[in-house]
Amino acid sequence: MNILVINCGSSSLKYQLIDSISEKVLAKGICERIGNQGSRIVYQPAGGEKEITEAPMPTHKNAIQMVLDSLVNETTGVIKDLSEVGAVGHRIVHGGEKFNASVVLTEEVIKEIEACNELAPLHNPANIIGINACRELMPNTPMVGVFDTAFHQTMPERAYIYGLPYKFYTDYKIRRYGFHGTSHSFVSKKGAELAGLDINHSKIIVCHLGNGASICAVENGKSIDTSMGLTPLEGLVMGTRSGDIDPAIVEFIGKKENASIDRVMDILNKESGVLGISGISSDFRDLEKASEEGDEHATRAREVFCYRAAKVIGGYIAALHGVDLICFTAGLGENDAGIRKGICSYLDYMGIQLDDEVNNSHRAVDVKLSTPDSKVQVWMVPTNEELAIAKETLALLK
Amino acid sequence: MNILVINCGSSSLKYQLIDSISEKVLAKGICERIGNQGSRIVYQPAGGEKEITEAPMPTHKNAIQMVLDSLVNETTGVIKDLSEVGAVGHRIVHGGEKFNASVVLTEEVIKEIEACNELAPLHNPANIIGINACRELMPNTPMVGVFDTAFHQTMPERAYIYGLPYKFYTDYKIRRYGFHGTSHSFVSKKGAELAGLDINHSKIIVCHLGNGASICAVENGKSIDTSMGLTPLEGLVMGTRSGDIDPAIVEFIGKKENASIDRVMDILNKESGVLGISGISSDFRDLEKASEEGDEHATRAREVFCYRAAKVIGGYIAALHGVDLICFTAGLGENDAGIRKGICSYLDYMGIQLDDEVNNSHRAVDVKLSTPDSKVQVWMVPTNEELAIAKETLALLK
Repeated sequence: MNILVINCGSSSLKYQLIDSISEKVLAKGICERIGNQGSRIVYQPAGGEKEITEAPMPTHKNAIQMVLDSLVNETTGVIKDLSEVGAVGHRIVHGGEKFNASVVLTEEVIKEIEACNELAPLHNPANIIGINACRELMPNTPMVGVFDTAFHQTMPERAYIYGLPYKFYTDYKIRRYGFHGTSHSFVSKKGAELAGLDINHSKIIVCHLGNGASICAVENGKSIDTSMGLTPLEGLVMGTRSGDIDPAIVEFIGKKENASIDRVMDILNKESGVLGISGISSDFRDLEKASEEGDEHATRAREVFCYRAAKVIGGYIAALHGVDLICFTAGLGENDAGIRKGICSYLDYMGIQLDDEVNNSHRAVDVKLSTPDSKVQVWMVPTNEELAIAKETLALLK
Repeated sequence: MNILVINCGSSSLKYQLIDSISEKVLAKGICERIGNQGSRIVYQPAGGEKEITEAPMPTHKNAIQMVLDSLVNETTGVIKDLSEVGAVGHRIVHGGEKFNASVVLTEEVIKEIEACNELAPLHNPANIIGINACRELMPNTPMVGVFDTAFHQTMPERAYIYGLPYKFYTDYKIRRYGFHGTSHSFVSKKGAELAGLDINHSKIIVCHLGNGASICAVENGKSIDTSMGLTPLEGLVMGTRSGDIDPAIVEFIGKKENASIDRVMDILNKESGVLGISGISSDFRDLEKASEEGDEHATRAREVFCYRAAKVIGGYIAALHGVDLICFTAGLGENDAGIRKGICSYLDYMGIQLDDEVNNSHRAVDVKLSTPDSKVQVWMVPTNEELAIAKETLALLK
């Protein structure tokens, strides 16, 4: 079955058409600047060139129509007609406590997802707009929602309850949810397979390190803790996000900068992280280059990132009572040997040893990074959230 | 030399007179409700009964005068006249980056301490009021300031720099400072001695667990990381403080409760922690009792506390590349066997084993809690901040 995977943001929409049998991507692309001037669609069939078409897209429905038109286009389309799209899988950021697994999208389910909107006010409404646009254009095609939060719903209370008045949890649903769940799930399963572990008797730590970054402790295949929290702001230092800070700093910055709480949140989400520390870039490649050229701000930003990640891993080793496997994935995890090395260098006390040659010579492939003597296996396991969404979608419709 | 140790808060003042040779407390007590109706002084000479005297204390100067009067009182005083007070040691909460050690208090130094006031607006001004009151009443007695933050000034950048715009550090001094430094310093030294370690080649984690709680990673006698941050709000779940939360929760609570940022900070500092989680008490003894009687809220609060502490310890084991010794101190650390057990139970992967019988049968004494087989020593080491302040004071005046 061909499955169309949709990841819909407020003004953009990423898509992939995946053959669920071969697990191959038939075509993929992105619609950008939806609802704005200069909107355009990028479309790329497997093995073909990227096509960029500027076209007005006042709504997400227009954007989806453009995607569907591209897929069936006579010259570069990859299917003959829309009946060849067996299902649509939608990425949904927040499923609250309601959704601990993917779900077939019905009218009723969509209402329940809308009830989670205030937990992710920037993302969920956009996800739902994409769902509704697809339902209008493909009313007879089954749709599935795959949640970033669902995999983490197995966390025990001790991991998800904050040190706050308990009524904030019961009344306002303030708790740790965690994100990147589709990736943590995919990578932990794949990692266990590659490392020859029985997932049902395994202690795995997945480091999803991209511009957004989170780490997850996976015990016997289930998430038992993760570094993002109520929102994706908590945890690691990220590209532009602060991660953990003293909560009193929110007030302190507000007073010092004479800034509203909204403005402070903007600073913490968009002007902080390694961008903030370095003053150079949120892109770790820029920082690596600057660091090699002797820029101490860039070096500092990378060191803080590695140190903070190592401390989270150390904490999760305690949470898991040990660890069998550490997986690195996502942009940085798959491409930045220095960051992987920087993090693992703190973990020597666990008998962890990286094979420097392997670590330095591979990008974005499944590869064992630890030496044969290492007491804990370390693997690079490229994530594939779209394929994971397609698999989840297929599994629900079988 | 007799040293008067003063810990001055905004409306209270704790004091001890310590003989620096025998290290014995000659007398101690507290002045309460200074500046309010119903103020009173508690005074207790060594081996004697507590005396409680209600007396008006409109200012801290009045309170100090009451303390001095009590010390030289003909019937229960412990010294003949004030010339027998060789020096005064003042606890000062925040020394910023200016003070990495204790300091003799001069006019100039006091000004520099005042410059740190905005980093601890509730505490530092009160400390300085106490200093000035003492200077007026004992103009010829040397005074020393001992800072809660000083011990942590050895932290490397990677531990004290937040993932924030760097100018917040350079312009506003926003960084991790850490607190309880006098205790972490005292306990790590004492612990190394007890455990037979060379402090200069040691990896020690000190858990100062009281109503305020922080953990410190001590490498070769120097603090390299600690869980409190810019303020004492960060880190562990505490009696009434939240510790780490998603920074976005500050905004979320403000919106939900229609509360100002000041009010949210009040909630996080005074209505959160195990009090907030349990809805019962900030006192762990109450929670232990309630938990034994089957109260799930109390059980949850204690479990979250232990889990969070264990994760911080796990992180510091990574920061230290291992650990030789873990010390428990302060109210909980010295008295709550269940909390110590709960935390250490996560650390089995390090070969840590508590001797349950020893753990259950001692309070507030120097005692080794780990079994002879334990790969890492665990000790209970009662803290004594007043004695530590007296020693620091003496050392500076020698």
